[in-house]
Amino acid sequence: MISMTLNQNVKTPLYEQLYEFIKSEIRNGTYVYNTKLPSKRQLASHLQCSQNTVQTAYQQLIAEGYIIAKPKSGFYVCRLDGLFLIDNQQIHPDKAGGKTAAYRYDFSHHGVDADSFPYAFWRRITKEVINEYDRDLLKLGNAQGDYALRQKIANYLHQSRSVQCTPEQIIISSGTEFLIQILIQLLPGNNIYALEDPGYERLSLIFKSNRVRYRYVTLDENGMTLEGLNNSQSDVICITPSHQFPTGNIMPVTRRIQLLNWANENEGRYIIEDDYDSEFKYSGRPIPSLQGLDAGEKVIYIGAFSKSLAPSIRISYAVLPDKLLESYRKRLSFYICPVPAIEQQVLCRFMDDGHFERHLNKMRNIYKKKREILVSAIRQHLPKVSIIGANAGLHLLIEVQNGMSEAELIVSAREASVKVYGLSQYCSSGQYINHKPTILLGYATMTQIEIAEAAKLLQKAWFSK
Amino acid sequence: MISMTLNQNVKTPLYEQLYEFIKSEIRNGTYVYNTKLPSKRQLASHLQCSQNTVQTAYQQLIAEGYIIAKPKSGFYVCRLDGLFLIDNQQIHPDKAGGKTAAYRYDFSHHGVDADSFPYAFWRRITKEVINEYDRDLLKLGNAQGDYALRQKIANYLHQSRSVQCTPEQIIISSGTEFLIQILIQLLPGNNIYALEDPGYERLSLIFKSNRVRYRYVTLDENGMTLEGLNNSQSDVICITPSHQFPTGNIMPVTRRIQLLNWANENEGRYIIEDDYDSEFKYSGRPIPSLQGLDAGEKVIYIGAFSKSLAPSIRISYAVLPDKLLESYRKRLSFYICPVPAIEQQVLCRFMDDGHFERHLNKMRNIYKKKREILVSAIRQHLPKVSIIGANAGLHLLIEVQNGMSEAELIVSAREASVKVYGLSQYCSSGQYINHKPTILLGYATMTQIEIAEAAKLLQKAWFSK
Repeated sequence: MISMTLNQNVKTPLYEQLYEFIKSEIRNGTYVYNTKLPSKRQLASHLQCSQNTVQTAYQQLIAEGYIIAKPKSGFYVCRLDGLFLIDNQQIHPDKAGGKTAAYRYDFSHHGVDADSFPYAFWRRITKEVINEYDRDLLKLGNAQGDYALRQKIANYLHQSRSVQCTPEQIIISSGTEFLIQILIQLLPGNNIYALEDPGYERLSLIFKSNRVRYRYVTLDENGMTLEGLNNSQSDVICITPSHQFPTGNIMPVTRRIQLLNWANENEGRYIIEDDYDSEFKYSGRPIPSLQGLDAGEKVIYIGAFSKSLAPSIRISYAVLPDKLLESYRKRLSFYICPVPAIEQQVLCRFMDDGHFERHLNKMRNIYKKKREILVSAIRQHLPKVSIIGANAGLHLLIEVQNGMSEAELIVSAREASVKVYGLSQYCSSGQYINHKPTILLGYATMTQIEIAEAAKLLQKAWFSK
Repeated sequence: MISMTLNQNVKTPLYEQLYEFIKSEIRNGTYVYNTKLPSKRQLASHLQCSQNTVQTAYQQLIAEGYIIAKPKSGFYVCRLDGLFLIDNQQIHPDKAGGKTAAYRYDFSHHGVDADSFPYAFWRRITKEVINEYDRDLLKLGNAQGDYALRQKIANYLHQSRSVQCTPEQIIISSGTEFLIQILIQLLPGNNIYALEDPGYERLSLIFKSNRVRYRYVTLDENGMTLEGLNNSQSDVICITPSHQFPTGNIMPVTRRIQLLNWANENEGRYIIEDDYDSEFKYSGRPIPSLQGLDAGEKVIYIGAFSKSLAPSIRISYAVLPDKLLESYRKRLSFYICPVPAIEQQVLCRFMDDGHFERHLNKMRNIYKKKREILVSAIRQHLPKVSIIGANAGLHLLIEVQNGMSEAELIVSAREASVKVYGLSQYCSSGQYINHKPTILLGYATMTQIEIAEAAKLLQKAWFSK
């Protein structure tokens, strides 16, 4: 007979206690193969519990392959061969991360305002989405991404960014890097890619590790110059016209048209427009996307929910021109959309019913205020500093003319426990390297109070010596 | 004064009705820029609601940037410039999918048993994970994937697959394809990759679109032959030793050692072991992974949760040998883990507390029964048929000797509304193409009753004419 007692005074249900006990006795070899277990009636009377309790425990054990019910004979212990017996061992328990925060304030341009993420909606929608009657939730969906989500994205891009596209043209992926890899495979292998200098530092690493050629093109205040572009002999240009990263410049329409004309000169030329933080523009009229200016044939538009929701959401999208879409479907449609089905559906529902619109407007307001506080703190506390690129996005730049080099500015800020980022780290060895000492200040993750306090610390670090 | 009435008899809260009304009046231009709204007291008295209702609606409008509160003056309508106004337009509403199920039964080898997914646990854990006090949830986590999840995976692989690894060696990604792309970038660009023939059809497409060389190596019943491998002059082999796809053969230890010896002959040689459905083995002793046999330097182990949980989960992992790990960290660590943070944490908690172990044991039992029903239905209804590869995984093969060609078998099954898959579609033009007519039958997605009924339909289609 089974030698245990059920404990009525703990949270674990009785059937679970019985299930766990018998399971462990089978696993540790006390109950060997073919041992006959007591009948439900016997065991219930022995343990002074209901037959239902025993029944539920036995059913669980049967479902998991520990015991078997032989008709008109009883319950017997199975062979353990092939059963999964995974003890919860801790491997390297202490290496988890544990990087201590060395800085009090961090003007990182990554990240979003953590207080404002719509946790409650996201939780509620996710709970609704995980629905056992929705069999499609477990299946691989459309390889380009859930069609309904692509409709929402097309609608959003059309209304807020003047992007001209159908849901068919959209490919959903996990992060911009994966989209760039797809584009590398989609476009000819001998292409030369023109990258912005200064620019997003990861981009060159992707091209390098994918073994394709790329050249840096130095920017003027309006973006990539036609002269630099022609000198580079590139086929495809990668640009961030809405809010150039890192300089924060917005490309004017004249330059946009020049670049589109350049692309139209040759059939194989394309423009990859990375609209990475276009959600946030604070003054002046919104500038439509380059894709919207185009007749629709030369611009590959890419974007993500990293800034509008959170970087950890990892959902990005590309809008392909029709000609490339055709080629994608022929050659690359075997790639399965890497975003989990649950996540796609949650985002789709979130964009439905106006939650996304509400969230964007709320965040725009919040970031606008943070920017105002940062700008006025800079004006108040930091003399001899000019502000660049503050009209959009989630970061701005300051040129600091206190006699310190960029490296010195970073070091003295660090000594005041403020992390700031120099423009130089985003520059290749091109001409832009000779810029005045310039610091990037991202303000999305800090609170209003933190921004003001950190600016005061920068004053001490840079101007009080 | 605001011309609306609040409706007490609907589900929408009063403040929400008021918020929506004012928002739409601002958006459609009725309330223009700088219009002064009534005070809270006035409006509450006019609408016969509490001041709290008006307060909540006004706060929402302020948060989203529609109105502004001027101290000691009142509430005023903001400029609409830059506000997101996204109407929920339907674009191409009817193209969603709508592929009609042309078959009554589908012996697809994709997919899992949809009735057995742990919806309730998954829902509960997800709800717990989306926690507003966990700021890390919004940040980009570790580039190789959440460390705690990598611990769980290392523990699982060690205990159930004899894989020798630390969490440091694991890279978490979205699907096997993305891991293969990473490996292509990690290994030398002039490598030749040996693929199994027959084999997983998508694999060659990945190598092709990434512009690297690959060769097919014909299999014997034990897998890739050393002779074929040497003829191919390959550097890296991609194999599925636990349950070869599609033949279902399990590679014996002697062949495993031969292949490891081949890899050890040259420093640049590696074996990519895809353990895609190793979770399910029904008879005989479990065969440890090739990685576990290796001293740990020559095998790159890859796996996924597609079969053990669901394909739509999209979480996969690679275990890199130390030498490749070092190179990965130097050259490719800029790639951000593509799996959303929420999903990683949910899976991590699911693997904790034994849920995953329970689920695997339950599923093994369920699939074992389905396999038994399929095998006995084949024996009962389909004469002149031999069964191959039924000891593991979620599909088996049958050689059908009724005089029909493989194509004829597929067509006559289709006429009986049963979808089956011919072995030929997984074969390159190598020798294996001359195999006897062979059909793949996947049984994971069908119920026990459906399996039995579909087998009877195959009998009619293939043997009653």
